[in-house]
Amino acid sequence: MGEFEFIEKIKKASLEAADLPEGALGIGDDCAVIPQERDMETLVSTDMLMEGVHFRLEWMDAESLGWKSAAVNISDIAAMGGKPAGIFLAASLPSSLDEKWRMEFMNGFLKLCSEYDVPLLGGDTTSSPDRLCISVTVLGKCPKGHSIKRSGAKPGDLICVSGPLGDSGTGLKLLQESSLTGRAYSSGSDEDYLVHKHFRPIPKVKEGMALAAEGGAHAMMDISDGVASDLRHILKASGVGARVYPERLPMSEQMKRVCAARAWDPVELALCGGEDYQLLYTLSPLERDRLAPEDFVIGEIIPGEGILWDGGNPDKEYMGYRHF
Amino acid sequence: MGEFEFIEKIKKASLEAADLPEGALGIGDDCAVIPQERDMETLVSTDMLMEGVHFRLEWMDAESLGWKSAAVNISDIAAMGGKPAGIFLAASLPSSLDEKWRMEFMNGFLKLCSEYDVPLLGGDTTSSPDRLCISVTVLGKCPKGHSIKRSGAKPGDLICVSGPLGDSGTGLKLLQESSLTGRAYSSGSDEDYLVHKHFRPIPKVKEGMALAAEGGAHAMMDISDGVASDLRHILKASGVGARVYPERLPMSEQMKRVCAARAWDPVELALCGGEDYQLLYTLSPLERDRLAPEDFVIGEIIPGEGILWDGGNPDKEYMGYRHF
Repeated sequence: MGEFEFIEKIKKASLEAADLPEGALGIGDDCAVIPQERDMETLVSTDMLMEGVHFRLEWMDAESLGWKSAAVNISDIAAMGGKPAGIFLAASLPSSLDEKWRMEFMNGFLKLCSEYDVPLLGGDTTSSPDRLCISVTVLGKCPKGHSIKRSGAKPGDLICVSGPLGDSGTGLKLLQESSLTGRAYSSGSDEDYLVHKHFRPIPKVKEGMALAAEGGAHAMMDISDGVASDLRHILKASGVGARVYPERLPMSEQMKRVCAARAWDPVELALCGGEDYQLLYTLSPLERDRLAPEDFVIGEIIPGEGILWDGGNPDKEYMGYRHF
Repeated sequence: MGEFEFIEKIKKASLEAADLPEGALGIGDDCAVIPQERDMETLVSTDMLMEGVHFRLEWMDAESLGWKSAAVNISDIAAMGGKPAGIFLAASLPSSLDEKWRMEFMNGFLKLCSEYDVPLLGGDTTSSPDRLCISVTVLGKCPKGHSIKRSGAKPGDLICVSGPLGDSGTGLKLLQESSLTGRAYSSGSDEDYLVHKHFRPIPKVKEGMALAAEGGAHAMMDISDGVASDLRHILKASGVGARVYPERLPMSEQMKRVCAARAWDPVELALCGGEDYQLLYTLSPLERDRLAPEDFVIGEIIPGEGILWDGGNPDKEYMGYRHF
């Protein structure tokens, strides 16, 4: 299959996965074209994933890698409260990745896009001498002035997360310690669940849009590096500090069982394990009724700078852990 | 210099290079934000450049590579007749490329962006185990419905190019045959001129915008692979054929002299040497007065399909060369 045939196949599959916006032009010209709308703003994010740095082909199946490449980028649009509008995929492909692999990768990529109705509008495929490199760019939109920045947190705000933390990090730790693929775990086991969470993150698009609606979150981002690291971006951008209660971190039962069986510290994995892609946001305490059933308050914004850890294991140092 | 310090430096340099559009948000959050405008459309293009496939670090200085990475992508916006509005840079950087190299690369990138007033709005920097990989995404805009596609060519149209062809391809051939860096040629020599054309292409932004204005070009693209290959994209998308006169191809005196001295075929290099980034467009013969002084008519659109070569060397096969 030549490059042109491959691109034609991708074009066809992408049109099946999601409809183009009215008046839009997708794959096949020098540029994609998307009509602009009055009183809207465009959100743009780009990510690069390099083999050996961000993923290992021996651990991860092609479909999961395709899914995750789209998901982590769309998560950035969710983190601003936007609606994804179009996605672009560039990849340098070594010849060792055959047609079957490439089509599985595209299946995973387009499956995720299809779930969020995001059309693949363009990209670039080139050869690579050895390593696979993937770059994804996503465009989103939201009403003008309504995107949620990192800089809006205010003292008194509740610090919230949109779901359990540490599943992905624990899944990665399982892969690292066992050097096995996720498929080696029996289907339905706790381990299988956590590896799946690492492979197939869910961008919280609807949740982000709801939080950006009138009178919503003050500051928001998605958790890619772990709360202990990511929360600092909000604090720095907003010029505030935080009090966080490690005992209030939401964790899945699967993750707690796996940690207990292996004597791993679940709080450390919840705070410092990355790639959960939950939303981390701050909310006025007057807006507490906006919390969805699966959301958790893990602390509050205070004047000053840095994080005060209130409770938890005083012997641990979570990125500068200090007992309050 | 850590990653954060590097990003802060880039942010500062990018703000000096080009102003952000009013109401826009640049580097530093989950997404960039660009306000949309009524009656406009957004153009988007993405390219990936992989070391060893698209460039060689031993041939090319960092500043030229930065310049070219931005230029070839902005050229895609020019090829639709749009105005570039913002650029995004993702790079996987091996540790062998030190701070000096990285800053020179950014200088070249931002120098080109500054000339076209294109703000760097975001991106991603990651490490790489070995090879440098660069991905650039550019956004542009133009009045709704005015972008020039590849699909609009009509029988009777003139086929035009915006300037000399083959300079870049001849420069590359010099690099390949000599295995020397461009700097090895004496400044001001023909060889130096051609290598410079290969390293520092000029996106034809103003020219493209003029051709997209009311009653302009019917079809347009930029020449990245050579006319012999690129023209076929216009023909296929438009469902037409072309008659091309190889003797009418514009070539620089420098290129003709270098080819004469080395017994290289200049017509072949003009047709098949890539990366000139001139505009290739078709125009109604009634609009002939739109041709700029440096533009050349190289053929005309005819019914049917494929290219009929009229004149030139009948013994040569230019991508299916046939004497008419």
